[in-house]
Amino acid sequence: MQPITLSNMYQARKRIQPYVMETPLINSDSLSMSYNASVYLKLENLQETGSFKMRGAANKILALSKEKRERGVTTFSTGNHGLAVAYLTAKLGMRAIICISNHVPSVKVNKLTSLGAEIIKVGDNQDDAERYAYELAEKEGLTVIPPFDDIDVITGQGTIGIELIEQFSEMDMAIIPVSGGGLFSGISFALKKYNPKVKLIGVSMEKSPVMYESIRVKNPVVLQEEDTLADSLLGGIGLNNYYTFRMVQEYIDDFILVSEEEIARGMMYMLHHHQFAVEGAAATTVAAILSGKVDVAGKNVVSVISGKNVDTSVVLNVGAKYLATTK
Amino acid sequence: MQPITLSNMYQARKRIQPYVMETPLINSDSLSMSYNASVYLKLENLQETGSFKMRGAANKILALSKEKRERGVTTFSTGNHGLAVAYLTAKLGMRAIICISNHVPSVKVNKLTSLGAEIIKVGDNQDDAERYAYELAEKEGLTVIPPFDDIDVITGQGTIGIELIEQFSEMDMAIIPVSGGGLFSGISFALKKYNPKVKLIGVSMEKSPVMYESIRVKNPVVLQEEDTLADSLLGGIGLNNYYTFRMVQEYIDDFILVSEEEIARGMMYMLHHHQFAVEGAAATTVAAILSGKVDVAGKNVVSVISGKNVDTSVVLNVGAKYLATTK
Repeated sequence: MQPITLSNMYQARKRIQPYVMETPLINSDSLSMSYNASVYLKLENLQETGSFKMRGAANKILALSKEKRERGVTTFSTGNHGLAVAYLTAKLGMRAIICISNHVPSVKVNKLTSLGAEIIKVGDNQDDAERYAYELAEKEGLTVIPPFDDIDVITGQGTIGIELIEQFSEMDMAIIPVSGGGLFSGISFALKKYNPKVKLIGVSMEKSPVMYESIRVKNPVVLQEEDTLADSLLGGIGLNNYYTFRMVQEYIDDFILVSEEEIARGMMYMLHHHQFAVEGAAATTVAAILSGKVDVAGKNVVSVISGKNVDTSVVLNVGAKYLATTK
Repeated sequence: MQPITLSNMYQARKRIQPYVMETPLINSDSLSMSYNASVYLKLENLQETGSFKMRGAANKILALSKEKRERGVTTFSTGNHGLAVAYLTAKLGMRAIICISNHVPSVKVNKLTSLGAEIIKVGDNQDDAERYAYELAEKEGLTVIPPFDDIDVITGQGTIGIELIEQFSEMDMAIIPVSGGGLFSGISFALKKYNPKVKLIGVSMEKSPVMYESIRVKNPVVLQEEDTLADSLLGGIGLNNYYTFRMVQEYIDDFILVSEEEIARGMMYMLHHHQFAVEGAAATTVAAILSGKVDVAGKNVVSVISGKNVDTSVVLNVGAKYLATTK
């Protein structure tokens, strides 16, 4: 297992700087007042393509040799990671093939093709698409850009941690969404190196929390996927998980699960108090505070707002319920 | 009439830097593609207190002498300017009295008091509050912080123009909301000095567009206020207007009015394509493009998104109509 290092994160930051925004960290006056704490929001929802995934994808792609860049890349994500890869390769004039299952909805496919990516439809599910991406990479000399379990990807996500150290040196708690664990691992590594006393809280949804269950039974597991507002957090961690399972295990101080209702409340809180429509995954960290499942009183807290890729109809439907209850 | 200068704007920028964000300028991929243009959004909605008003208020307050700062300030705005003054004076440990009419809704009053401002309720309308603020200033040695028709305020708003020159040097059109004209005057001054060929488009709502009518009849007028989604743009320009009427008259290349339906469409566009809930005033510039009233084809365009202070219920109600029409 190749080591992750802080110096690589600083190099990553320089490397990805032309493509990745240093996102603002804003004080949530309302959360701070309501919970007698200093609660800040790290706005990765403002990142190009709408999520933090730009950081890891950019770091991986820009670290490739000239030869590998010329041959091109492939990946198998239809979500935020796929968008980031499609966007970056278009910017860099590189070939990118996104392998997806035949069941991916056309709205997602259109978004990827509009960014200029080649799409190959194959098989019935995400696992089929993943397998095909690796076969294709082998056959055509492409490089696979994995969504989370990769040293360069984790290092890229870790640049958020480096920014946080500079933006909020007094921080003593960070609340971070957990799916495959790339975001959590990267940020945690940076923050624990900076100050081992910083408390790191991971949050997933109650529906199919694969990393949570894997940590609980001390081994990567597979779960049946259920519908959730935090759909960006769905997906396995890989039975042969190499980095992120161990890193989450090592760094996590508390692992919180939030219900669909709590996620909806988090989404509405972000709309009402901060005028951001965010995806359910991003709202989990605010939901963790609002639910009382994380005690932030007296603390300097960062809540990572990971992305904004949510259908407007979902936001408005959650909003309609909210209006009905506040009338 | 004291002159506005570009060098004062650069000084203002340095002065306000500790309190004011250099806001991001983002490409609207969707507008750019739909209108065969490069359309960028200047995100003043991300500014602390939720609007560009921070810039002018900060520049005015920070330019005061030590003595004047110690005595304190007063103003008569219940909207974005009032919020900015209340926020800044709290940060600076200064006294601030906001004069408001007895009819200002409690939700606005609460927002101002929660920021720490003193409130004095007086009279029946905004004009009464304004008159009282000037009397109070005289009596107690306070400085009035006017919302727009003031050289330091205009200079502060102009820092947006300076940022735009650096962020998008190829720009050849800027679309700017117009109410009292402080924002328009400040940005226009900077951009026309930079490149006299930059086209400056002002936008107001069809309901009670005071500056529009004043420019049309070549003299400041008073109009009866009507309800509008762009409520931040309501209010007179002052019959004794000193700076902004003449500056708007001098710099404006085209003055557009948008309907309530067009503003609603602009708000939904910002939510759907950019995941920002913005106030109607801010959506007018996007509405101007969507309505076809401004021809942006082939141009490098900046649309100024001036603020985000809108009730969630307004956004959700506009959204409900939008959902109904897209079903």
